[in-house]
Amino acid sequence: MIVELVNTGSELMLGRTLNTHQQWICRQLADLGYVVSRQVAIPDTAEAIQQAVREALSRADLVITTGGLGPTSDDLTRDLIAGMLGKKLVEDSAVLARIQQYFTARNRTAPSSTLVQAQVPEGAMVLMNRNGTAPGLAIEVAPNTFRAQGKTSWLVMLPGPPRELRPMLKESVLPLLDRVLAQAEPFVCRTLRATGIGESLLEQAVAPELSECVKAGLELGYCARIGQVDVRLAARGLEADAIVGEAERIVRGRLGAYLYGEGEEEIEETLVRLLSARRETVAVAESCTGGCLAHRITNVPGASHVFLAGLVTYSNKAKQRLLGVKATSLAERGAVSDLVAREMAEGARQKLRATYALSLTGIAGPSGGVPDKPVGTVFIGLAGPFETVVEHYLNPFDRETFKEVCAQQAMEMLRKAIVGRAGAVD
Amino acid sequence: MIVELVNTGSELMLGRTLNTHQQWICRQLADLGYVVSRQVAIPDTAEAIQQAVREALSRADLVITTGGLGPTSDDLTRDLIAGMLGKKLVEDSAVLARIQQYFTARNRTAPSSTLVQAQVPEGAMVLMNRNGTAPGLAIEVAPNTFRAQGKTSWLVMLPGPPRELRPMLKESVLPLLDRVLAQAEPFVCRTLRATGIGESLLEQAVAPELSECVKAGLELGYCARIGQVDVRLAARGLEADAIVGEAERIVRGRLGAYLYGEGEEEIEETLVRLLSARRETVAVAESCTGGCLAHRITNVPGASHVFLAGLVTYSNKAKQRLLGVKATSLAERGAVSDLVAREMAEGARQKLRATYALSLTGIAGPSGGVPDKPVGTVFIGLAGPFETVVEHYLNPFDRETFKEVCAQQAMEMLRKAIVGRAGAVD
Repeated sequence: MIVELVNTGSELMLGRTLNTHQQWICRQLADLGYVVSRQVAIPDTAEAIQQAVREALSRADLVITTGGLGPTSDDLTRDLIAGMLGKKLVEDSAVLARIQQYFTARNRTAPSSTLVQAQVPEGAMVLMNRNGTAPGLAIEVAPNTFRAQGKTSWLVMLPGPPRELRPMLKESVLPLLDRVLAQAEPFVCRTLRATGIGESLLEQAVAPELSECVKAGLELGYCARIGQVDVRLAARGLEADAIVGEAERIVRGRLGAYLYGEGEEEIEETLVRLLSARRETVAVAESCTGGCLAHRITNVPGASHVFLAGLVTYSNKAKQRLLGVKATSLAERGAVSDLVAREMAEGARQKLRATYALSLTGIAGPSGGVPDKPVGTVFIGLAGPFETVVEHYLNPFDRETFKEVCAQQAMEMLRKAIVGRAGAVD
Repeated sequence: MIVELVNTGSELMLGRTLNTHQQWICRQLADLGYVVSRQVAIPDTAEAIQQAVREALSRADLVITTGGLGPTSDDLTRDLIAGMLGKKLVEDSAVLARIQQYFTARNRTAPSSTLVQAQVPEGAMVLMNRNGTAPGLAIEVAPNTFRAQGKTSWLVMLPGPPRELRPMLKESVLPLLDRVLAQAEPFVCRTLRATGIGESLLEQAVAPELSECVKAGLELGYCARIGQVDVRLAARGLEADAIVGEAERIVRGRLGAYLYGEGEEEIEETLVRLLSARRETVAVAESCTGGCLAHRITNVPGASHVFLAGLVTYSNKAKQRLLGVKATSLAERGAVSDLVAREMAEGARQKLRATYALSLTGIAGPSGGVPDKPVGTVFIGLAGPFETVVEHYLNPFDRETFKEVCAQQAMEMLRKAIVGRAGAVD
């Protein structure tokens, strides 16, 4: 099955907006076996949109477009596509009612410009937009319109704003695909998420044992992200479930405690889940990460049940005043040291009466490095009910990557302490 | 001039990696007047790469590819393109020396696989890679190879990792373009960054007065990002400087203090710059933003000179213990209140002896809202040398957007307090 994605928007071409649609849509589709083979971004001009959609429809079973469905003058997609397919626009009374109700609920009258969104190409399916007024549209394109060989294509048009597009894809488009473009054979896909191990070491650890699975049809993929690596295991056909199951068994056996989660779970979600289940709490004391760790933990809904407080003690005075770090420790060993990390973690745990406290002190750069403590040095402390441990890493990256990697390492220390397991790769 | 971008990488198609290259490259080029008219992402297969590059070269004056220049088996771009253009690969001794020196400096011997990167298509220009071993390549493609009408094209191949690609584009590619694909006429582009005002209000405020400039050739663009809007002013031709200058004068006059910076400056950079110049300091006390504000300020190199500490007081106890918020205030007015925001800011300022302290307390959601304080409610306090002020906003967004918008609003309050100006839009 051939799937193509067309993102429209002049702001994309000017580099003003990050195209998050590409990753998100590709991910949702790939996990169900619909792998996008080409993605194109083009400006909001009639010529560019027509050319890109025509080309995609000449090749693909499924073409998804994003953007251009709103009420303003640069929203051209609906009209252009109706024109290309020789379809009249007709008013859809359900969409019209929905637009009016959307504004009524907000105590406003629908501006006349928004009513154009109720104009729908004849024969198109309407995809409800629960966070906005522009409906999505799905059209079955007859054979030989643009594509030879008597094949039909499906054209799905989604609105640009992520909060409108995302629920629409999950709630309307994926079920539609399951009906009209069902996979010819079973497809199974599982993602295991590892942290604390680099991509090449991880690959060395699992690839040899997985070679039989690959011969049997396993699609094996690694993807390194900041501080972590995803292992994607997928297969098609009647044996798909068995192949992916066997591969998962091997990966779990080899990587053991490096695996923190599955699917789309982030390690901060794992932590909030683990701590909530145990009715335990955490506090953090950050220097070099500057709040990054607290920010990530508090991104998780429900974090307030387990996260008590974070202390971003950038200055030495703040370390002393807020965490009780000793002046002598700072003077003798320096702020970036094993001892100060220990005192920060223990000070935070005691002060905030948390089950666990994490601390980070290091050199984010770009300046501030010295020969025995170069830029990228970090000490991470973890004070728990039974002991305090401090680990030392070197993360010689740019400032923002450094912060993210350190935060990831700290969360992994805590996760391991909670689940009480050690690494399994020999 | 027609510019196209081709991003290769199967991980893009599986939705495992966010394509940050598109935005970054498009932005760098657009600011110099080279607007990308089409971007394509394709998997690392020979067929897809050849087809995409061939198509792009049939249309464009400049084609930039990313990825596929490394030493592994899925790095196909160099070989394929040499093949397509009928060029032999020849060993470049400077590149070879550079690869060996790269590994020598790291006390390792160069793996034999990496030496393939010294193979360069005959006649290609080599672009030095100062953060890796794969050089970039630039080739002038002769007329009528893929493109009719006797026109040549330039093909520029860049390595995939951002820390290799970005300096290479800035240091090698942009100067090359200036030599071989110079703009036919002067091009001027300026971006002004506004915060605290929505896109449509901003447009209403500036568009009418700018209409004369637009008639004279001004390219006017707005781009809304989280909590802020960029205004892009560009023009071509001998009058470009005058047109953009006049447009800037109008925008500054209309938007006044809503404009916090220019170009690519983020508001956290503005703040660190302003505070550093005044030798003033800031501390922050965050509840609902959970460290997001501290994280953003500390992303700025040199933040340690002005940022003393951040207190992420998620629990009521932490607000009392760390900031001295009164139990009676919490009981009578609730944690999300004007009074608690005031006490948090004043407590942080006093405790940390900062020039300014910002505080945030609100309801990030998705749960926790009540009728008179719905999800999205936030109180932001600012304690300064002369007074404490509290502002109240409603930011009814998803949890992560809420945090970012609140942090932006807090920084804008501080920025206005420092520069001492008020809004200018009537």
